[in-house]
Amino acid sequence: MCAGFGADRVALASAIADYQESQSEDTAQALYWAAEPRRQEIVRRLNLAPGGTAAIVKMRALVLDSLQQHKDLAPLDADFLHLLSSWFNRGFLVLRRIDWSTSAAILEKVIRYEAVHEINGWDDLRRRIEPSDRRCFAFFHPQLADEPLIFVEVALTAAIPRAVGALLSPDHQPMAAEAATTAVFYSISNTQRGLAGVSFGDFLIKQVVEELRRDLPQIATFVTLSPIPGFVAWLRHEQAAPNGLLDEETRTAITKMDAAWTPSADARDPMEGPLMKAAAHYLLRAKTGNGLPIDPVARFHLRNGARIERINFAADLSKRGLSQAAGLMVNYLYDLDEIERNHEAFAAGGEIAASGQVQKLLVSVAPALKHQMNRL
Amino acid sequence: MCAGFGADRVALASAIADYQESQSEDTAQALYWAAEPRRQEIVRRLNLAPGGTAAIVKMRALVLDSLQQHKDLAPLDADFLHLLSSWFNRGFLVLRRIDWSTSAAILEKVIRYEAVHEINGWDDLRRRIEPSDRRCFAFFHPQLADEPLIFVEVALTAAIPRAVGALLSPDHQPMAAEAATTAVFYSISNTQRGLAGVSFGDFLIKQVVEELRRDLPQIATFVTLSPIPGFVAWLRHEQAAPNGLLDEETRTAITKMDAAWTPSADARDPMEGPLMKAAAHYLLRAKTGNGLPIDPVARFHLRNGARIERINFAADLSKRGLSQAAGLMVNYLYDLDEIERNHEAFAAGGEIAASGQVQKLLVSVAPALKHQMNRL
Amino acid sequence: MCAGFGADRVALASAIADYQESQSEDTAQALYWAAEPRRQEIVRRLNLAPGGTAAIVKMRALVLDSLQQHKDLAPLDADFLHLLSSWFNRGFLVLRRIDWSTSAAILEKVIRYEAVHEINGWDDLRRRIEPSDRRCFAFFHPQLADEPLIFVEVALTAAIPRAVGALLSPDHQPMAAEAATTAVFYSISNTQRGLAGVSFGDFLIKQVVEELRRDLPQIATFVTLSPIPGFVAWLRHEQAAPNGLLDEETRTAITKMDAAWTPSADARDPMEGPLMKAAAHYLLRAKTGNGLPIDPVARFHLRNGARIERINFAADLSKRGLSQAAGLMVNYLYDLDEIERNHEAFAAGGEIAASGQVQKLLVSVAPALKHQMNRL
Amino acid sequence: MCAGFGADRVALASAIADYQESQSEDTAQALYWAAEPRRQEIVRRLNLAPGGTAAIVKMRALVLDSLQQHKDLAPLDADFLHLLSSWFNRGFLVLRRIDWSTSAAILEKVIRYEAVHEINGWDDLRRRIEPSDRRCFAFFHPQLADEPLIFVEVALTAAIPRAVGALLSPDHQPMAAEAATTAVFYSISNTQRGLAGVSFGDFLIKQVVEELRRDLPQIATFVTLSPIPGFVAWLRHEQAAPNGLLDEETRTAITKMDAAWTPSADARDPMEGPLMKAAAHYLLRAKTGNGLPIDPVARFHLRNGARIERINFAADLSKRGLSQAAGLMVNYLYDLDEIERNHEAFAAGGEIAASGQVQKLLVSVAPALKHQMNRL
Repeated sequence: MCAGFGADRVALASAIADYQESQSEDTAQALYWAAEPRRQEIVRRLNLAPGGTAAIVKMRALVLDSLQQHKDLAPLDADFLHLLSSWFNRGFLVLRRIDWSTSAAILEKVIRYEAVHEINGWDDLRRRIEPSDRRCFAFFHPQLADEPLIFVEVALTAAIPRAVGALLSPDHQPMAAEAATTAVFYSISNTQRGLAGVSFGDFLIKQVVEELRRDLPQIATFVTLSPIPGFVAWLRHEQAAPNGLLDEETRTAITKMDAAWTPSADARDPMEGPLMKAAAHYLLRAKTGNGLPIDPVARFHLRNGARIERINFAADLSKRGLSQAAGLMVNYLYDLDEIERNHEAFAAGGEIAASGQVQKLLVSVAPALKHQMNRL
Repeated sequence: MCAGFGADRVALASAIADYQESQSEDTAQALYWAAEPRRQEIVRRLNLAPGGTAAIVKMRALVLDSLQQHKDLAPLDADFLHLLSSWFNRGFLVLRRIDWSTSAAILEKVIRYEAVHEINGWDDLRRRIEPSDRRCFAFFHPQLADEPLIFVEVALTAAIPRAVGALLSPDHQPMAAEAATTAVFYSISNTQRGLAGVSFGDFLIKQVVEELRRDLPQIATFVTLSPIPGFVAWLRHEQAAPNGLLDEETRTAITKMDAAWTPSADARDPMEGPLMKAAAHYLLRAKTGNGLPIDPVARFHLRNGARIERINFAADLSKRGLSQAAGLMVNYLYDLDEIERNHEAFAAGGEIAASGQVQKLLVSVAPALKHQMNRL
Repeated sequence: MCAGFGADRVALASAIADYQESQSEDTAQALYWAAEPRRQEIVRRLNLAPGGTAAIVKMRALVLDSLQQHKDLAPLDADFLHLLSSWFNRGFLVLRRIDWSTSAAILEKVIRYEAVHEINGWDDLRRRIEPSDRRCFAFFHPQLADEPLIFVEVALTAAIPRAVGALLSPDHQPMAAEAATTAVFYSISNTQRGLAGVSFGDFLIKQVVEELRRDLPQIATFVTLSPIPGFVAWLRHEQAAPNGLLDEETRTAITKMDAAWTPSADARDPMEGPLMKAAAHYLLRAKTGNGLPIDPVARFHLRNGARIERINFAADLSKRGLSQAAGLMVNYLYDLDEIERNHEAFAAGGEIAASGQVQKLLVSVAPALKHQMNRL
Repeated sequence: MCAGFGADRVALASAIADYQESQSEDTAQALYWAAEPRRQEIVRRLNLAPGGTAAIVKMRALVLDSLQQHKDLAPLDADFLHLLSSWFNRGFLVLRRIDWSTSAAILEKVIRYEAVHEINGWDDLRRRIEPSDRRCFAFFHPQLADEPLIFVEVALTAAIPRAVGALLSPDHQPMAAEAATTAVFYSISNTQRGLAGVSFGDFLIKQVVEELRRDLPQIATFVTLSPIPGFVAWLRHEQAAPNGLLDEETRTAITKMDAAWTPSADARDPMEGPLMKAAAHYLLRAKTGNGLPIDPVARFHLRNGARIERINFAADLSKRGLSQAAGLMVNYLYDLDEIERNHEAFAAGGEIAASGQVQKLLVSVAPALKHQMNRL
C-alpha cells in the first residue's frame, strides 16, 4: 500500500519544477497538494463508512505491530498518525467522569487497560471509582463512544501521599470529598495502541484540574504519585560507569542490592540515602541524546509544566515497583501559578523544575551518611 | 497570515534536493511534511480551545468573503478547506431528525437557513416538520451541537408530485405515513458558509433514504422535486444563439416570454411544449467547459446517481420559480437498483441518466406542436 | 358513574357494624377499605394503559367543566382530585429549566398557558427565556413528558422592581446574571385545568430559589412582582360601604376613578395616596368568611411564608392591570430566614407579615395628604 | 404509629351518623374521607422530600420484617401497600432493556436480586445479557432510577427447551437473534421487598412480548421454563395420604426417592413416569383453600393467561431444582390468541389451561408402565 499509493511522481516532479521557477505561495501550496500521498485520501474514504474511525484505529495498531519487520510501512504509519492526530485533536474530545453508574462495557475496558497499577476484577475497580474520595476521568471521541482513549485515576486526600499501598488498600476508609485538600493523580493509562503518538495526557490533566476546582474549590494541591520506570535499569548501568553521574559511595552502595531488590525492611532502610540521591540524579541529570530527561514519566510531567516535588522511599513495594524503581516513586506537583513558566523553561532550554528538598539530594552525601553506607 | 505562514522555504528546498537525489518513498513523504504550510498547524492549535471548531468555521466564512478583494488569501482558504473537509468527514457527522420536539435554537436556524422555499415564521415551519407526512433530517457535528450543517425536507406522498404549491399549502391535509408510497425530497439547504466546498448532500440523501426504508418499508419511490436555477438565464442566452442547442421554433417561442415571465395561465399554457423541450436540452445537453451539466442542481443529483425522471410545467409559480426557471421543476429519481451504475457512468463519461419521457423531449418537435407554437 | 360506582353499600353497612362493635384499629381500617368508592379503582385501571395518566387529567378537566350543571359529579371530581394529588405528589415531579434550547413542543405550551402577562408569539417568548438575566423553570411529571405543569418566569435585577413594563419591554438591555442581586418572580402559571386543586406553586418557588442560590450565590433577594386581581372589584364594593374598611376620604377619592380607570398620568398621580392606602387595607384587612385574605395571590404567597414588602403605584398599566388593580402591583418578599416563621404564623392564626412601609399605609392619612385628596 | 395515627375517631363517628341518616353519595364519600387513617397523609408528606419514595419503600420492608412480632403493624403495612400500589401503578413504570451497556450500579443489583437461577459474578451475568440470543428487561420507576423493580431474563432459541442447564452453560454457542423462533422466559425476579404485594410481573411479561415481537417479528412462540417450587414438599405430604390425589402405584414409587433426591441417572430415569404423573396432578388438581393452584408459579402464569404446555423431566439438576421439584420444570406457553380467554376462564372459574400431553398425564397409568413401576 505504501509505494503504490504515495504521491503521483509525475505530478510531483511537475509541481517541483513550477515551484522552483516561481517560488510563490501558490506554487508552494500546489507542491504541497502534489506531494500528498494518495494513502491519505484512501484513509479518509475508509472513514466514511459506519464504524470507519474505529476500523482505522485498529488498522494503525496492526501497522505499528508490523513496523519492526516491515520497515517500508513507516510512511503509511506516518500518514495514519497525521490523520489520526488531526481527527483526535483535543477540540473533538469529550471529558467524562467514570464512576459506578458508567456502563459495564466501558468499565470493563478500564479494568483491561489500566497500565500502572493493575486492577484485579470488579471489586478492585469499584474501590477506585465509587468511594467519595476517588475520581476517574476519561477522554472519549464521539465516533468511539464506548472507548475511553485515556483515563486518569485520582485520589482525594488530606496530604501529598508518600506511598501507593495505602491508596489502593481494600481497607481504605473513604473521607468526604469536601474535606480533601489534595488531588493525587496516581495512574494515567492510554488505551488505544492505534493512537500511539497522538498526545492526550497533558490536556486530560489540565481539564481534570479545572473540573475538580469547579466542584471542590477547597482543593489547592494537585500532585501525582508516579512511577520511575527506568530507574533500576539506569542504576545497573551507572554502577559500572566510574565516570558517570554517581559518586563512588553511591555506586558501591548499589552493588549491594540483590537482583530483584526485595529485601526486608531491615535491609532496605539503610539504602534510603544512596537511593534517594541516585534517583535525584536520574531524574534531574540523566538525559537522552537530545537533552531531555531519560525517564519517560518525568519527561511527560515536566513538559506539562509540573515540578519534581518529592522523591519517596519505599513507596511502591509491588513486584513491578521494586524491580523497576527499587520501590521509589515521585510526586510531580502541578502548581497552577507556575505551570506556564515551567513548561516554557523546559521547552526552551530543558530546564527542570524541582523543589528545594529534591535539589538538595544532588549535593554530596554528608559524612555521617557515608559512614552508614560503608557499613552496608 | 499567508505568505509568512507558508512552508519553511529553506527546509522545503532541502527536502526537494533530498527527494531529487533518491526519489524514495521516504524522501517523497519528507517532502510532503516540509511542504505543509505552517498555517495548518496554527489552525489545528486554534481547534484545541473550547469553541475552537465553531470559531474556525466562522473564520473560513470571513476568508471566503474577502477572497474577491484579497486574492492572496486563496492559499489560506485552501488550507481551511483541507482541514475542514477532514474534520467534517462524513464519518464524524450524526444524522438527526428535526421535528416539533427539536429545540427552538435549532429550529430557528432551519427557518433562517432554508435556501430553496422560504419558511415564513414558526407556523410555516411547523407545517413542514410536524404533520404525519412530513420529515426533516439534518447532519450535525458533535462540536457544533446546535448547528444543523445541512438539512433536507421530505414530503411523504401517494405519487410523484408535479408542483410544489400543494406540498407547501397551509390547507394541506396530512396523510398517514404508513399509507405513503413515495418520499419527496423537496428542499436541501446547506447552512454554513464556512463549510462551502465540503460535500455533505450526497451522504445526507443516502442516509435519509435508509432511515425512511427502515421506518416505512412500504415506501418504494425516492424522488426530488427540484428547482432548475439556471434555466431562464441560459434561455436568454440561447435565444440569441442561432447555432446553439435550440431549434428555430423554440427560440422564436421563447422571445415571446416577458421579462418577469409571470403570465396568466392562458398565456402560459401554450408555452408548455417549447419550454419543456428547451428544459430537456438544458438539462441533458448544456455543459460546462469540463463537460458537466451546466445546472448545479442537476450536477449534484446526477453525480449522486439519480436519473432525470420528469420535467414539470407550471410547477413553481413563486416569483423566484418563474424568474429562474419559467415555473418549471424537475423530479430526480433515486432508484436504489440504479444509483451505483448511474453514478459511475456519470463520473466516468459524464453520461446522464434520464427517463424515456425526458429523452423524448429532445427529439424534434412534432408538426402539430410546431403549428401551435407558430400561433404564439 | 357516580352513584353506581360508589362504595358497595351492603359491605359498607357491615363494616360500620363491625367497627361500632369493636372500634379497633383493624375494624377502623376495614371500614376505610369498605368506604372506598369503586370509582377510584376504575381510575387506577385507566392509568394502566399507555397515555392513561394524560387521559385521566383530561377527563378531570371535563368533569370540572360540567360540575356547575351536574352537581352529582362532585364525588367523582373528589375522587379524581384525591388520586391526582397522590400521583402528582411533589416527590414525583421534576424541575426543569425552560430556555431557548427547550423543544418547540414545550415552548408552544408556555406561550399558550402564560396566565399573568400574555406572551405575544415566539419573539416575545424568546425575550423571556433567552437573555442572560432571565430564567424560566417548570415542573414536569415523568408520564406527561412534554407538559409543563406549572412554570415561573424570573427576572434577575439589581433592585426590587416597581413596575412590570420595563421588565417586559423589547428594548430591555440584559445584564450579566453574575451581576444581579435580586431574583424577581413576575409570573407563575398553572397549565393543567385537570390538576386544579393539586398544589405545586409553593414547591416550585422553593426549589427555584434553591436552584438560583446554587448557580448564582450572590443573589440575596427573592421577591415577586405580583398582580392584585381582586382589588378594583373590592374597591367598587367598598365605595358604597360607609361602615367598611375605608375611611371617608378614601371612599370619596375612589368615586373619582372612571370605569376603565385609564387616565393620563396627570389625572392618575394624585390618586396615589388613596389607592396605596386602600390597597394596604385590601391586602391586610379584607378577609374571606374563614378569615383568610380575600386576594387569591396574597393568600398564595402569604401561605408560602412571604411577606408583603411593597405596594407599587402605576406598576402595571396594561388594560388588565388597570381594570383589575388600578395599575397597582405588589412585591412579596421571600426572606429565607423568615419564611418558616411567617408560614406558621399565617397557618396558625392568619397573621399577615408585612414590611414597615406597608403597615404605615394602614395608619390614617396625614392632614397634608387629606388636603391634596380634597382637591381631586 | 398505628393506633395513634388512624382515623380521627370523633370525626369518624360523626361521619357514620351522617351517613346512616341520609345514605347519599355525598355522605358515603364524606365517610370515606373521615375513615382515611392519618398515616396515609404522613406517608404522602414523607414523599415530598428528595429521596422520599426510596425511603418509603425501605420503611415498608422494615414493617414487613417486623409484622410477625408486631401484629399491630398490620394496618400500617396495609396503608403502605395501598399508597405504593397507587404510586407504582404500571402507568408510571418504564420498561428498559438491561445489557452490557447498562450501568454497573444497576447490573450489580441484577446479580444480587436474581432469585431463580443464581448469577455467579460478572462473567456469569455477562453470559445472560450480552450474547445475541439473550435479552433482559426490567421495570423502573422514575423516582428509583437505578433500582430495577422486577426483571426477566429471556433466551432466544430454536425450540421450546426441556432443561435449563444448556441455557446457562458457559459453553453455550449464541445464535443470531434473527434466526430464533422462540423466546424463553427462564427467570423472573422481584427485587424490592418493600413492594411485596404490588403486582408487576404480568405487565412485564406482556410488554416484553410486545417489545420482542416488534424487534424480531419472526418469533412466534413465547414460553417459560419455570420451576415447580412446592412439588417435593407436596409429594412428601401426599405420600402419606392414601385418599389423596395420587394412586397407589405412584405413592409407592415416591417412597423410593431418597431425601435429597440426587440419584444417578440410572436410578432417576425409571422414576420419570410416576413423577411426571404426580407433577401433572400437583399442577392441575392440587388447590389451596380458595380453589387456586397450590403452586405459586403456576398461579402466577395461569392468572396471566398462559397454559401448562409441557412438564420436563430431569430439567433442573441443580441442588435446589432437585430438592424442590425432583429436577422437574414446566413450560408455560403464552399463546397470544388464547391469553385473554385463558385468563378469564381462570379468573372466573379457576379453569386451568393445559396442553393435551399434560392432560394425558392425569389419566391412569397404562398397564405396561405399571409393570415397570412395580419393578422399582
